[in-house]
Amino acid sequence: MEILEKAQEYERKGRNITHLEIGEPTERTNSLIKKAAKQSINSNNSRYSNSLGIQELRDKIATKYKNNHGVSISPDQIVITNGSSAALILSLITLIKPGDSVILVEPYYPCYPQLIKILGGKVRIFKTSVQDKYQVNIKKFSKFINKKDKVLILNSPSNPTGVSQNKDVLKFLSSLKINIISDEIYEGLNYDSDPETFLNYNKNSIVVNGFSKFYSMTGWRLGFLIAPKNLIRGIQKLQQNMYICAPTVSQYAGVGALSINQEEIERLLGSYKKRRDYALSSLRDMGIDVGYSPDSSFYIFADMSNYTDNSLDLSLDILKKVGLGVAPGIDFGPSFNKFIRFSYSSSLKNIQVGFGKMREYIKEYT
Amino acid sequence: MEILEKAQEYERKGRNITHLEIGEPTERTNSLIKKAAKQSINSNNSRYSNSLGIQELRDKIATKYKNNHGVSISPDQIVITNGSSAALILSLITLIKPGDSVILVEPYYPCYPQLIKILGGKVRIFKTSVQDKYQVNIKKFSKFINKKDKVLILNSPSNPTGVSQNKDVLKFLSSLKINIISDEIYEGLNYDSDPETFLNYNKNSIVVNGFSKFYSMTGWRLGFLIAPKNLIRGIQKLQQNMYICAPTVSQYAGVGALSINQEEIERLLGSYKKRRDYALSSLRDMGIDVGYSPDSSFYIFADMSNYTDNSLDLSLDILKKVGLGVAPGIDFGPSFNKFIRFSYSSSLKNIQVGFGKMREYIKEYT
Repeated sequence: MEILEKAQEYERKGRNITHLEIGEPTERTNSLIKKAAKQSINSNNSRYSNSLGIQELRDKIATKYKNNHGVSISPDQIVITNGSSAALILSLITLIKPGDSVILVEPYYPCYPQLIKILGGKVRIFKTSVQDKYQVNIKKFSKFINKKDKVLILNSPSNPTGVSQNKDVLKFLSSLKINIISDEIYEGLNYDSDPETFLNYNKNSIVVNGFSKFYSMTGWRLGFLIAPKNLIRGIQKLQQNMYICAPTVSQYAGVGALSINQEEIERLLGSYKKRRDYALSSLRDMGIDVGYSPDSSFYIFADMSNYTDNSLDLSLDILKKVGLGVAPGIDFGPSFNKFIRFSYSSSLKNIQVGFGKMREYIKEYT
Repeated sequence: MEILEKAQEYERKGRNITHLEIGEPTERTNSLIKKAAKQSINSNNSRYSNSLGIQELRDKIATKYKNNHGVSISPDQIVITNGSSAALILSLITLIKPGDSVILVEPYYPCYPQLIKILGGKVRIFKTSVQDKYQVNIKKFSKFINKKDKVLILNSPSNPTGVSQNKDVLKFLSSLKINIISDEIYEGLNYDSDPETFLNYNKNSIVVNGFSKFYSMTGWRLGFLIAPKNLIRGIQKLQQNMYICAPTVSQYAGVGALSINQEEIERLLGSYKKRRDYALSSLRDMGIDVGYSPDSSFYIFADMSNYTDNSLDLSLDILKKVGLGVAPGIDFGPSFNKFIRFSYSSSLKNIQVGFGKMREYIKEYT
């Protein structure tokens, strides 16, 4: 946030800033999404929906999980939410009481610890490392977990590493006696790994997902969760009290999104892969070896210990010297204060300019 | 909720049910709202907005408060939220710690105690009565409040009574050393009272409002809060972690709503007043004297102690016998289990059918 605000300050002063710090896709909204949204507005389908969401969208999500993952879920297990943020909050409130411990896999999405604290939970951090290619180390995790841990939040593919946990890790985690919230918001944005849902490993987990990343629908605030049937009634009551329902027009837009054909999706995935490959080779050219393969999502997490001990200072300096925004590693956990995160969610052109600026920084200022 | 679900069960079996239990306006969405929303979709203005909301909407809200209430607020004091539910949650998290006591004025909006409990607060109930015309009794309240009370949630005009607190009460409350969250979601829907904002009495309060009720924009999930400047930074951080931002297309739709002209608004208010007068005279005709004047919003709260000791049983019986949905008083506080709430937010025709059914119930089944 400090970086984004500083960047905006420079921009107000007329400086050209390239943003590689933001995890927001800049793809244009697909016309099917727009069409479905406008149709719902024209038809006055903009009143409260059922608190669980419109049936058509829940049906289509169940079908998508069947087709893409071979997993049978009932539409009755799906709750449409105000973005995946709300899905995460509803899941956490359902599974933890104040004082309960929640395990985060470090590096982690910065909102996780904040949300856990807001809801009165305690954060326990399990560290992964680039040496382990950011996979959860099964031996270490077995020693780490204890009976007081109530929930593990898994984020695979991960923000900020772009790493998907491998099948052995998923199998191992599914065998543990702990509630798992599987945040799969980057599900499907896989280039060198198979798209997975944790439901194929453990039906009792709660899956969090949404339309922001895959369908570039950030501002629509449309997410969902998939939970075991026995939890749905409780989640529905929370939803009614806290949110009433997800935005109705966005829900119809989501139906449009799920009609996008396979060719278009493959074009998108190909385009992301191209951007990732460009970003990785760019970093390599300037002597930065990230030491692992970011197989999915749109992030690359780079060890910058050759250049800094303080990722915020480094990020502010990069911004100041060459006008490039990157995210400081400290945001993703205290162990990663020598790292920075690059996002390749924007256009290839923007990424080329951004990594050009990074090259200049490394060459001129380090 | 039990009533609504039972009603839907009857409807699935083909029975005609009239809904006076729901507080959702059924006005058609104004064309200016639709136009602004569709324009934002066409222009791809559907990405994340600033977490505080789009500037144009915040500016227009500040102007509206200046014009309608003569109160000067800076757009920087306004946060656009995912419905007024989110505004309420952000306000509560900002003002209370787990264990803190929050005063509710009974009868109250059913979500209040649920939200307070979810956030770890304690509910303290201050009862008003039809004998006091549902005004807060100043003498009783002075004795009731104590130093441990951190927040008072005020809801004027009120759901479920349709009563606005009078100026003496507002002045009195503004003089107390307690944080006040003034939920003004029915602000402006006044027929026999002046529209008020608590900001004119106490600038340190947090005002919660939204577009759902006045502009019939329920499914858009668009609300806002107005808070003292020193609280905004903290609220913004909560917003970023919990919601990211309000739905962007809805925010542009809100700009459209604030362009609706005065004639149209007066037509709307005249129409609601007509419906209220019809509902009140209908009740009088069937021998039900509500004992007060519902001056605003779109609810009438009726003492049914001549007919029942259990409002849920009565509501279920009315639904069963004549196919009319009403809301049981118990939902609005334990002291009101002999009351039911009628909503006149739907069309005059629907209201006429509904009160016709109520007349039949009183005549045939009591």
